[in-house]
Amino acid sequence: MPNRIYNFSAGPAVLPVEVLAEARDNLLSLGDTGIGIMEHSHRGKAYMALHEEAEALCRELAGIPSNYHVLFLQGGASLQFSMVPMNLLKSGLTADYLITGAWSQKAAIEARRCGTVHVACTSEDRNFCYIPKGCTWSAAPAYAHFTSNNTIFGTQFAKAPDAPANVPLICDASSDIFSRPLEISKYALIYAGAQKNLGPSGVTLVIIRDDLVERGPKELATMLQYRTYAEDHSLYNTPPTFGIYVMGLIFKWIKKQGGLAGVERANRDKAGKLYRHLDSGGLFRPTADADSRSMMNVTFVTGDASLDEKFVGVAKKAGLDGLKGHRSVGGMRASLYNAFPPAGVDALLEAMRDFEAKSA
Amino acid sequence: MPNRIYNFSAGPAVLPVEVLAEARDNLLSLGDTGIGIMEHSHRGKAYMALHEEAEALCRELAGIPSNYHVLFLQGGASLQFSMVPMNLLKSGLTADYLITGAWSQKAAIEARRCGTVHVACTSEDRNFCYIPKGCTWSAAPAYAHFTSNNTIFGTQFAKAPDAPANVPLICDASSDIFSRPLEISKYALIYAGAQKNLGPSGVTLVIIRDDLVERGPKELATMLQYRTYAEDHSLYNTPPTFGIYVMGLIFKWIKKQGGLAGVERANRDKAGKLYRHLDSGGLFRPTADADSRSMMNVTFVTGDASLDEKFVGVAKKAGLDGLKGHRSVGGMRASLYNAFPPAGVDALLEAMRDFEAKSA
Repeated sequence: MPNRIYNFSAGPAVLPVEVLAEARDNLLSLGDTGIGIMEHSHRGKAYMALHEEAEALCRELAGIPSNYHVLFLQGGASLQFSMVPMNLLKSGLTADYLITGAWSQKAAIEARRCGTVHVACTSEDRNFCYIPKGCTWSAAPAYAHFTSNNTIFGTQFAKAPDAPANVPLICDASSDIFSRPLEISKYALIYAGAQKNLGPSGVTLVIIRDDLVERGPKELATMLQYRTYAEDHSLYNTPPTFGIYVMGLIFKWIKKQGGLAGVERANRDKAGKLYRHLDSGGLFRPTADADSRSMMNVTFVTGDASLDEKFVGVAKKAGLDGLKGHRSVGGMRASLYNAFPPAGVDALLEAMRDFEAKSA
Repeated sequence: MPNRIYNFSAGPAVLPVEVLAEARDNLLSLGDTGIGIMEHSHRGKAYMALHEEAEALCRELAGIPSNYHVLFLQGGASLQFSMVPMNLLKSGLTADYLITGAWSQKAAIEARRCGTVHVACTSEDRNFCYIPKGCTWSAAPAYAHFTSNNTIFGTQFAKAPDAPANVPLICDASSDIFSRPLEISKYALIYAGAQKNLGPSGVTLVIIRDDLVERGPKELATMLQYRTYAEDHSLYNTPPTFGIYVMGLIFKWIKKQGGLAGVERANRDKAGKLYRHLDSGGLFRPTADADSRSMMNVTFVTGDASLDEKFVGVAKKAGLDGLKGHRSVGGMRASLYNAFPPAGVDALLEAMRDFEAKSA
């Protein structure tokens, strides 16, 4: 077993060792097939079984009702920023966007190419350090779009916003999908790039309600219509087979952790420990408002950029990697996705206490 | 080392054992970084070095001039069927398509959503069993598009078609990219899904000339403009890092085989052996015209569908997998991509001779 360090990267991010080991053991031969997992035809029995299992596990974990499709796409959340409005918005229609960070801003920019965007709320006034309390909705939005967790700014919606009745709620859940139970029926469409909680980059999970699939215009490019994926179980063309396989392994691993409730408990423990220290009045303080804090990305600063940089360097030497905050916030960011081990939080706390003692 | 069988799959397809072994050894820790290859941030030094190396090796192998971009995209050739016309065709303009099989037909269907398609040639009259000799070009096509190798029908362009001067030539090279030297300057854009000669599914290689990047409308969705990838070295959003890493390993492996000239020799040897037997007047006969045969996908039949089925079954039992032909051709298809071992061709020939002897 190689010597692994603590990887606080915001994504691509740490994956469970058991999952990596299983993928490794199937790279030259998937089970006893004599063909590596990456080399199996996507139309063959061996891969098809894994593909179906990944979908079934996804449905089981999140309790996805039968009127929702589970789709595996490519292009990341960034392509979804465009696919959502291309399928659901058009000139003359308005979509409501909740602007809580860089990613929702980017999503809104793509939507404006298709129709009108109404900003239902924004926290830009304080550099996105909070989740706005309420929204002002437009008269009859085609849909409402929000980003459940803001990777860069360390904020997270405690629960889904209450969109007006019958307005399809669309969520970019890239950085907190399956980190806690989800009430799927509240949403019309949830999408997430895999590379934080679900696997390697290059797969996008889309959970979409029947009626939204049908709403997309058939004039759109085939690969940009949700129905193309829904009709062919994400096998219209060659899917990213290895990524979907790893996602299936992750789903199995989540199940073993006690499902979404189990990982939520662990995530609350991990982030809670760190926030408690940040609230203790030492050298480090959190950047997000207390009621808006993310369980996935804990952002904090000393208030002195050079001290921040020094700490990031010290931590890196101690085997705590990827702690440098995004340039738009500065300071530090500890990404604590599902697979991040609790011992890594303890190690970070130790490094912080040690640094504080030496700086005092 | 697991017991590997001969995998004749048309894609995803066999990969070199050395490449798989190296990927396997870096899954839990890339070198001594303590972080697995899939877990490294795409903005970190370790991944960036691999990303740049993959591009540099690609340029070196194919002798790509500096006025071409090498891009790593997602969505497979199927998304390129749409991205090409979305960027380069519009209402009022015509693009010329050479229709030599199912994939070029699909590409033309997507182009018709954007502008006019002129069929410059087609081999549909004989179920695509040949490459047409000449083309009739439209007056001033925006571009000319062809599929260099037809995976399903076992045909391949011996050389790029001679499009009129100044007409950008665009090639879907998904199933024969880097199987032989390429004269890049003849092309304006070459694209290829990785899953045949270049790596796992989920990465698309695009080689595109400067001026075509600029031609795309800026109103297009950000992720559908080539300039988005060209300006940010395919790092505008999180790329499929693992797939690009494996592609880099494949490039290294090709270099060790003597580059594109080296793999071409090996490919000619492999396919040549098989075609010689198919031409020898035994039970099996090739389906493609002699002057149009593919070095990548060798399609053949007995002329008796039940005998074909029997042979596929017998071969499978002998450890020769994936030989069943596509339903639109029937019979058998032996895909002999770069990584397919010569010994596998010998094993197939032995199985064919044995079957012929028993059927005689």
